Amino acid sequence: MEFKTWLNTKIKKTEKYLEIYLPEKDNRQKKIYESMRYSLFAGGKRIRPVLMMETFSMFNEDEDSIMPFACALEMIHTYSLIHDDLPAMDDDDYRRGKPTNHKVYGDAMAILAGDGLLNKAFETVSQNMTSMKIPAERILKSLEILSTASGTEGMIGGQVTDMFVEERTMEYLEYMHKLKTGALIRAACEIGATAGGATEEEISKLSDYARYLGLAFQVKDDILDFTADEEELGKPVGSDEKNAKLTYITLVGLEESQRILEDYTEKAVASLGIFGDRADRLREIAEYLLIRKN
Amino acid sequence: MEFKTWLNTKIKKTEKYLEIYLPEKDNRQKKIYESMRYSLFAGGKRIRPVLMMETFSMFNEDEDSIMPFACALEMIHTYSLIHDDLPAMDDDDYRRGKPTNHKVYGDAMAILAGDGLLNKAFETVSQNMTSMKIPAERILKSLEILSTASGTEGMIGGQVTDMFVEERTMEYLEYMHKLKTGALIRAACEIGATAGGATEEEISKLSDYARYLGLAFQVKDDILDFTADEEELGKPVGSDEKNAKLTYITLVGLEESQRILEDYTEKAVASLGIFGDRADRLREIAEYLLIRKN
Repeated sequence: MEFKTWLNTKIKKTEKYLEIYLPEKDNRQKKIYESMRYSLFAGGKRIRPVLMMETFSMFNEDEDSIMPFACALEMIHTYSLIHDDLPAMDDDDYRRGKPTNHKVYGDAMAILAGDGLLNKAFETVSQNMTSMKIPAERILKSLEILSTASGTEGMIGGQVTDMFVEERTMEYLEYMHKLKTGALIRAACEIGATAGGATEEEISKLSDYARYLGLAFQVKDDILDFTADEEELGKPVGSDEKNAKLTYITLVGLEESQRILEDYTEKAVASLGIFGDRADRLREIAEYLLIRKN
Repeated sequence: MEFKTWLNTKIKKTEKYLEIYLPEKDNRQKKIYESMRYSLFAGGKRIRPVLMMETFSMFNEDEDSIMPFACALEMIHTYSLIHDDLPAMDDDDYRRGKPTNHKVYGDAMAILAGDGLLNKAFETVSQNMTSMKIPAERILKSLEILSTASGTEGMIGGQVTDMFVEERTMEYLEYMHKLKTGALIRAACEIGATAGGATEEEISKLSDYARYLGLAFQVKDDILDFTADEEELGKPVGSDEKNAKLTYITLVGLEESQRILEDYTEKAVASLGIFGDRADRLREIAEYLLIRKN
């Protein structure tokens, strides 16, 4: 199957399950569900669930079993964007071509919708744990990976280092991105492999792949903020520079950023050697992220 | 042992474990840990962990086993206060006699510290799951109770109904409090009983106790906001009235609120009949909450 077609089937499947785990509700809480769903179904790339599904599928045929974790990860990613866009944080008005959550629902609801999505991630896993056809110890290990990756030594820590930049150095920048973007992308592959039943060595190689992929992803994000077409990007271009953000562009410029992006992408792909053609989709994902336009 | 002495040993034990699960850190994330710890160690009553420890102890001697869940619940309660105090929410400057989290660390850090504490709750449970001496299925059930109680059909839903009041009726008020305060208090007792190995009937009775206790707790909160000594309460008195909040006081007045408080307390105690003197501490907790001054 052609890569784009394959990717779309995975995205569709992710969205089908997100719809199951977070359906519209017509009860007294309908407003917060509307707000949570507004951001969750705003057209994200679903790259984290797709990575988890694919690494899981390399070791286990029953892909549906991993969907609670895949959707939980996407919920966590989405909540982090809602909170990140708040006036008290990055104060962004647009995301994926649409007004940000707080512009539509107000700051209070956006805070609660973010809280709700983070919480819903752990609800989704815990409410579906007993029905997953995965051995209990792998589920528990996966839950540990998920909660650690999204916490203060993971994604939240990354948000802190981005919000309160202490040094404008490459070392600091890479530390920041290892947490902010890298932690959840790494968790996607590590959970997929762990829950699927990969060996320690296989998990370690997939973790390496994800680490470089996460860095490449962030370099690309920084490049896009500087060079993208505003309509394609779905948010204002040049906001990093305007907000004096620490990025690859503001630190080393466009040309060097492009070189770093290619270098990380190569290293990501090189980590997949032991898997042979079983890892072809992961290679295609790395190539796709390299040339994406938003 | 005299009740106050007993209660203090339980509070001390809770704080010892909170210290283990969320220690000071001298790494790059030290600031967010400082902010999380500022609120977590601000002198809360620790009523939720104490209820969980006591209900667990009624069925299982190894009280230490339940501490990850007890501390997780307290972290969730604490994060909800941090976010609730934010300018975009209740905009409160004082809590427990100290400036609120965002007054000390700023709005961005307070949002992230709240996120960090919610996440840390699930980290604490998942990182300690394999070492708990509790059968796996009870741990999974407890995790499900915890995540559901703290979510949009539980505590977060309660925050929404409090923030966006739709009706000023007793029915709405009780629905709001069943979620906002009630859900976590009920989770405390249900998790304690479930993890401890209580029967369905015992869990159900303890859940009834907790339901009435939670309502009583909230009526008392409303009464204190109206009548308390400001220094003892640790925050300004009369803020509910000032903010036109929907409370028992604003809805039915002080006298009727006091009557409702006593009624709920009686009902809480009456739910404990089947346990005989094994539930004496729970009865004492209900009495203590009835006469508390903050």
